[in-house]
Amino acid sequence: MDALIEKILQKDNPTVAGLDPRPAHLPPELRELPPDEAYLKFNLGLIDALADVVPAIKPQAACYEALGAAGVAVLEKTIAAARGAGLYVISDAKRGDIGSTAEAYAEAWLGDGPLGSDAVTVNPYLGSDGILPFLASGRDIFALVKTSNPSSAELQDLDCGGEPLYMRAARLLERLGAESVGEFGYSRIGAVVGATHPEELTKLRALFPNTFFLVPGYGAQGGGAADVAGAFDGRGLGAVINSSRGIIAAWKKTGGDWKDAARAEALSMRAALRAVRK
Amino acid sequence: MDALIEKILQKDNPTVAGLDPRPAHLPPELRELPPDEAYLKFNLGLIDALADVVPAIKPQAACYEALGAAGVAVLEKTIAAARGAGLYVISDAKRGDIGSTAEAYAEAWLGDGPLGSDAVTVNPYLGSDGILPFLASGRDIFALVKTSNPSSAELQDLDCGGEPLYMRAARLLERLGAESVGEFGYSRIGAVVGATHPEELTKLRALFPNTFFLVPGYGAQGGGAADVAGAFDGRGLGAVINSSRGIIAAWKKTGGDWKDAARAEALSMRAALRAVRK
Repeated sequence: MDALIEKILQKDNPTVAGLDPRPAHLPPELRELPPDEAYLKFNLGLIDALADVVPAIKPQAACYEALGAAGVAVLEKTIAAARGAGLYVISDAKRGDIGSTAEAYAEAWLGDGPLGSDAVTVNPYLGSDGILPFLASGRDIFALVKTSNPSSAELQDLDCGGEPLYMRAARLLERLGAESVGEFGYSRIGAVVGATHPEELTKLRALFPNTFFLVPGYGAQGGGAADVAGAFDGRGLGAVINSSRGIIAAWKKTGGDWKDAARAEALSMRAALRAVRK
Repeated sequence: MDALIEKILQKDNPTVAGLDPRPAHLPPELRELPPDEAYLKFNLGLIDALADVVPAIKPQAACYEALGAAGVAVLEKTIAAARGAGLYVISDAKRGDIGSTAEAYAEAWLGDGPLGSDAVTVNPYLGSDGILPFLASGRDIFALVKTSNPSSAELQDLDCGGEPLYMRAARLLERLGAESVGEFGYSRIGAVVGATHPEELTKLRALFPNTFFLVPGYGAQGGGAADVAGAFDGRGLGAVINSSRGIIAAWKKTGGDWKDAARAEALSMRAALRAVRK
């Protein structure tokens, strides 16, 4: 997790911008293009507008897969452009499989191929067989612990011997990560915990000092800076906060140039997060 | 699930052949080609050899993603060729996300685009928000319940109020599927249960009469026909059994033509499954 933390420190900003292009988010000037061309122009414009403000971007794989191989080619170009601009790339793919299949996913998302990213999100339901193959890459993962959606309670909150399932998942990650703790005290296995659960964030932060958090759900999903304050450690590290629609579709609220609107929203989010980290 | 069941009845065979190309599975004659071309020739040859024996194929998305967009293009052509040959296609992608992201995955895998399949596998960790968006497609899903890998016990077997987590997941699926039960009594939400857990298969079959099973782990992973017998209902329906390496890499054991070897293995598996279904 060291590469991400260094970029957060450089920019004094724990924001990750979610590049989740959907037809409804495209500004009018791009809507006449074929969808794959529009998504690429949109992403390149956003990367240009945000590269000196945010340390990281998080493309959501589903948005690209919806266009098939043509969309995946846009994702390849997006990842390359972002890494070329010095950004840390978290591919939000929530992959989860076992053995040689997990190795193939690791090869895809954390290898030297065209989708190679700095980190990928994974689903922990299959246990360590679905997590450890990703670590061999030497790069980072973020595994789901407590997700931001309303129905996350259906399985994640089930009582498993006195504590909820998500807590057991978090314990598994902390244990599996123990051998990869880096210079800032965080392992290469991070946890996804939604901004919609501020109390759980605070509790998990205290219990799992070696697990870095990826926190979605800021902005459009309802979480604010106060909700994520508990995710940070005493140094203002420990978490990166994601906003997707809030940034990339900011032009819908503000009008004006879509790149300027995204940048303004990212600057505003940076200020809000700086205020709660100290 | 009706379309799958009709094809199983037509061919009197509950086998799904896993099309999981990896460099090590390629026969010598294809190894000189660029990987994407080799995978496509391999798959088209296998589809041709198997189309009158098996009712369904299951491509593993990871194998294609490992090649990036070029691999995803091979997957598109594989899906189209298999559906064109009258096969039911289960894309084994184990996707899992929420809300508009789950809708994008459903658009990708169960829509009319180039990756559009008859069914997709999903991960239930996020709860019904991660499952219901797929049903709007009108097609089928298979959600993970009890997977075939050794570490599946780490989370899936945790005691949640007197029964293991995987049982709670199965209850959730049976409940969510209730409104989509088709003419054979099975809903459009199936469950993935590994062949490596014969006792659990028998128990789940008895408890969840409306949930169709996708059973991986036959052959190379150690499960045999006797292990999966409990997955079938009194009519010999209720489950489709997957073999991947056992079929597609059969040439490694038998020598000879790789297509003939795959076909011979599929015929042998059909005979073994027919014997335990009655």
